[in-house]
Amino acid sequence: MPRQAARTKRNATATAGGRQRAPRKRDQEVLEAAAKVFHRVGYSEASIQEVANELGILKGSLYHYIDSKEDLLFRLVDQTHDEVHQVLEGVAAVEGLGPAARIGEYVRRQVEYNFANLVTVTVYFREVDRLSSKRGASIMARRREHEQWLTGLIVEAQGCGEADPKLDAHVLSRNIFASIIWTYRWYRPERDDGARVAETCAAFAVHGIGGRAKKR
Amino acid sequence: MPRQAARTKRNATATAGGRQRAPRKRDQEVLEAAAKVFHRVGYSEASIQEVANELGILKGSLYHYIDSKEDLLFRLVDQTHDEVHQVLEGVAAVEGLGPAARIGEYVRRQVEYNFANLVTVTVYFREVDRLSSKRGASIMARRREHEQWLTGLIVEAQGCGEADPKLDAHVLSRNIFASIIWTYRWYRPERDDGARVAETCAAFAVHGIGGRAKKR
Repeated sequence: MPRQAARTKRNATATAGGRQRAPRKRDQEVLEAAAKVFHRVGYSEASIQEVANELGILKGSLYHYIDSKEDLLFRLVDQTHDEVHQVLEGVAAVEGLGPAARIGEYVRRQVEYNFANLVTVTVYFREVDRLSSKRGASIMARRREHEQWLTGLIVEAQGCGEADPKLDAHVLSRNIFASIIWTYRWYRPERDDGARVAETCAAFAVHGIGGRAKKR
Repeated sequence: MPRQAARTKRNATATAGGRQRAPRKRDQEVLEAAAKVFHRVGYSEASIQEVANELGILKGSLYHYIDSKEDLLFRLVDQTHDEVHQVLEGVAAVEGLGPAARIGEYVRRQVEYNFANLVTVTVYFREVDRLSSKRGASIMARRREHEQWLTGLIVEAQGCGEADPKLDAHVLSRNIFASIIWTYRWYRPERDDGARVAETCAAFAVHGIGGRAKKR
């Protein structure tokens, strides 16, 4: 399981810092409680006490898992990147797709990821700027991996007649990320058909670069 | 001047509340100072004192113009809506454009508006959710005007072969707003050619709905 593998790696890193870490399941419960609290009251207003309350444990026990509120935000954001990295790798591994169709598949899966993780993704985009500059930089580096990969696909699509070569691939790439990201602001599970929305965002991106995806 | 007219109207409303208002120029300086402070330190961390310092006046003098910090945020956001409403009206008034080309023109002008008002637009999107529910609702109503207008244009484009009628016009409309709005997150005036970016966002939107804009 990619998700498990990613989490093991992070735990190993944390343990290398010298502090005894609790089992992964508890780590995950802590992150989910933090996401709920940050989502409900906002990161700047949230307290460690509220996260402890959400978990039904003492504040002192929570400090067994983390050193600060910012640790919680960083781990949430970093775990989201572990997971969207798996989405990227999954799309990169699909065989028989032209570049435009691969872009469409990437958009579809990323939008579906957002819908399946709406609370965490909302906290991510609302609060990521609150991270310290060092941690913020490490997250920006993880984002750049996606930007470079997508921009590369757009250039490839431009080279083989699947996208308009007159348009700046970097700007197109940012527009595609806008479509993916902005879903967290307007998607309502009780109103919108998530699978259909994801398909429409994918079609918008593939059309948007000025190309036509080849049939799969 | 539409901007002046809009401001006069707001001043009239404020005066109707019974309080003597300062000249428009000072009102505008207050809003610009508030935008700078909210942009620099964030709305929740900002204080009326810092806005007064930015203006070089006493805090007590600032209360001559406003009753609360939230008044400043609301007026900033509301003024932005006065201005983007003028953009919409301007695009609606252009003669001889088919619906897809009109969508492209709207995107181009809104993106250029964002670039010309980057500090205020950034504060708007970062902080608009901090408004009280009543004021938030009045802003949402102003947004809906844009959504309905753009969705109507997309439906019109679908009806005359300029957009793909199989795609949900509401979802397409949200994707187009994503492209416009998200520019505030990544645009760097020292790096990016604003006019060219705006043209590319417009092309992405017009392509994205699956249509081809007719030549103007």
